[in-house]
Amino acid sequence: MTIQSMNELFLHGLQDIYYAENQITKVLQEMMSQRIDTALFDNLEHHLEETQEQIKRLEQIFRALGQTPQGVTCQAILGLIEEGQELVREIEDENVRDAAMLASAQAIERYEITRYGTLVAWADEIGRSGVVDQQQLGSLEIVDLLQLSLDEEKNQDARLTALAESRINRHAAA
Amino acid sequence: MTIQSMNELFLHGLQDIYYAENQITKVLQEMMSQRIDTALFDNLEHHLEETQEQIKRLEQIFRALGQTPQGVTCQAILGLIEEGQELVREIEDENVRDAAMLASAQAIERYEITRYGTLVAWADEIGRSGVVDQQQLGSLEIVDLLQLSLDEEKNQDARLTALAESRINRHAAA
Repeated sequence: MTIQSMNELFLHGLQDIYYAENQITKVLQEMMSQRIDTALFDNLEHHLEETQEQIKRLEQIFRALGQTPQGVTCQAILGLIEEGQELVREIEDENVRDAAMLASAQAIERYEITRYGTLVAWADEIGRSGVVDQQQLGSLEIVDLLQLSLDEEKNQDARLTALAESRINRHAAA
Repeated sequence: MTIQSMNELFLHGLQDIYYAENQITKVLQEMMSQRIDTALFDNLEHHLEETQEQIKRLEQIFRALGQTPQGVTCQAILGLIEEGQELVREIEDENVRDAAMLASAQAIERYEITRYGTLVAWADEIGRSGVVDQQQLGSLEIVDLLQLSLDEEKNQDARLTALAESRINRHAAA
């Protein structure tokens, strides 16, 4: 793989987050399979549904670009997941483990926010540059779809913060 | 290593970000050694100085806790760095490479914001719980030091966004 243009960089970014989202569906299910706080479980379950929609949205974008949906190995998400899982395994106390798991879920969330934010900015710039045929790129539609996922990730991040402050961290420190 | 309490989880979090900050000083220097946009260079140079201060601040916190400053391998930061470096190596066009490098720097920044945010929340909660002797933990001072680094990271993130939108992405898409 060699990247020659902003369009190709954008496509690589899509493949990166597509891979990441698919990994995240697995890790959310793995977290939910453990004995965890019920409010945290409900949060993760809701976000798993959102993640599945976000994957479909990315597939829609790939198709709009005339590309086959495919991922590219994303070392960052693998590192984030591995670090979270390793840490959680070290913790015996259930409440402290919940706090660590929530922090890990939030680190993953922030990674997605960064990537979607960058993709929105790149899509916006590619569309504005006029170098690429707007019709072919369908960039406006693409920006909107990416923005929708970005907003969902930001809302999920805010919900995790609220859950940590109101409940999870309090129980863990009690 | 087994983590039994919120205090131990907090200490682990400090060791994680201490390791990450030390890796980040290396990656910033590595980025700056390449042929990059001058405004991006200045930004990274400024943040390298901030990072060195943040490391000293963490060492101050370790000492306040009666601990020797030490890191613990952080797979997340290694993954973020590796992914960024791999991507940048694939790009020949200098302007497109700048855009990719800035996105990578921002992903690292967001990781730090997440970790410092979590540490502030945990330190706050540990202090409030009253389980731990306030004097021994010195939690108030610790929260302030962590908050200082958190604010710096957020400012750096905002500067990177401004630089991307005003200059780097524009040049890359031109």
